[in-house]
Amino acid sequence: MVPQHTELAWILSCTCSLPRIQRMAQWKEKKTLVKDPSVGLLTYPILQAADILLYKSTLVPVGEDQTQHLELTRDLAKSFNGRYGTVFPECSMLAGEVAKIRSLRSPTSKMSKSEPSDKGRIELTDSPESITEKLKKAVTDFTSELTYDPVNRPGVSNLLEIHLALCDDLDLEDILEDSFLRAEDTGQYKRRLAEIIAEKLAPIRAETIRLRDDRGYLLGVLKDGADRASGIAARTMEEVRHRVGLR
Amino acid sequence: MVPQHTELAWILSCTCSLPRIQRMAQWKEKKTLVKDPSVGLLTYPILQAADILLYKSTLVPVGEDQTQHLELTRDLAKSFNGRYGTVFPECSMLAGEVAKIRSLRSPTSKMSKSEPSDKGRIELTDSPESITEKLKKAVTDFTSELTYDPVNRPGVSNLLEIHLALCDDLDLEDILEDSFLRAEDTGQYKRRLAEIIAEKLAPIRAETIRLRDDRGYLLGVLKDGADRASGIAARTMEEVRHRVGLR
Repeated sequence: MVPQHTELAWILSCTCSLPRIQRMAQWKEKKTLVKDPSVGLLTYPILQAADILLYKSTLVPVGEDQTQHLELTRDLAKSFNGRYGTVFPECSMLAGEVAKIRSLRSPTSKMSKSEPSDKGRIELTDSPESITEKLKKAVTDFTSELTYDPVNRPGVSNLLEIHLALCDDLDLEDILEDSFLRAEDTGQYKRRLAEIIAEKLAPIRAETIRLRDDRGYLLGVLKDGADRASGIAARTMEEVRHRVGLR
Repeated sequence: MVPQHTELAWILSCTCSLPRIQRMAQWKEKKTLVKDPSVGLLTYPILQAADILLYKSTLVPVGEDQTQHLELTRDLAKSFNGRYGTVFPECSMLAGEVAKIRSLRSPTSKMSKSEPSDKGRIELTDSPESITEKLKKAVTDFTSELTYDPVNRPGVSNLLEIHLALCDDLDLEDILEDSFLRAEDTGQYKRRLAEIIAEKLAPIRAETIRLRDDRGYLLGVLKDGADRASGIAARTMEEVRHRVGLR
């Protein structure tokens, strides 16, 4: 809806050295997961940089796994400004206190919406049954006791992280010393945690499902956002084109 | 002026494998010529493919050095059609009888407008003096006789090619057996050829200079072209977005 994203991405790609983009950790990781890694997979961080710079953003709310991508964005902005005159402000990461939740199936990688199978993640719209099922099959180990040990017991520790992230009023000791939980094995704890997750997600799930059915409202939000974005994007690109000499 | 070019290029880049684009001969050659080859240099053939496919072109007038790029375009179109349904027609090269003119300074590479120095090429707007100067400094060898031998005498052979390309009514033997030319050494031949080039380019040069000063007319041509192109480009991208599921 805002074609300036790919336009700016193209211009930035002409200022970004190939070795620079090939050094990105996520590229190195992801290219091994597919048979034929695409050019788009490699250059995606440049499109992300355009997504940020097009709006002259100064604060970017991203997870820690995006630190390197934000660094690239800053470098591209700095190098563009140095070469053509200042257009882009310096941007920095807006990091909140967010739990690092890992995949239920491979608890050493992050829980990700781009993992092909949805069995490793809890979707915000998952039914309680589906959550119970996913938790049941979550990778743990052969020790039934509940301990927090991310290095040696990543599976169980991940479940505890999820538990903590959902319950603001609890800290790790509260959970580990809970007499009910101490009496349970991992299987029982998984069922208990599934209930907590389902309960916490229930209002989010209900609202998401309600909004999903309100197509008119959603299209309105999209259109309104696109209209506001388009105005800013058009002004930035006018400036960029002028600076690089395309007009 | 037609933002759909970069938009389609982005989509095509997501369907193009990285090894495929890294195999392009021009990339392999050009990346060695610059200190930090850019991502844009690598992905430029994908933008070229978008330039062609956006207009559903069937015949593409390009030089032989673009054969590989056109092959990429055909592959990208075929793979897009196969994956999302037929949108792009098959395109082929429209090759005329064109002389292969090489750089005056390094007669093993093509005469190119992208070479940093303009000393290797004749510009259509070069003055007769400039043409004489460039010809004078054209790389030849220590044999003063005029012979056509592209392998062992690329410099002189290139001059003969230019000569032939400019004079439809002459063939190679006419030139080599011309008694005037036979009596001359390479230096004299260069001066003679410079005159022929200047004479042939004179009307093109005059018209180019005249048009250059008619800014209003040129902007009108650009605007008219952009308007016509925009209509086609918008229709193709609507179709592409619909096919890939972006709308």
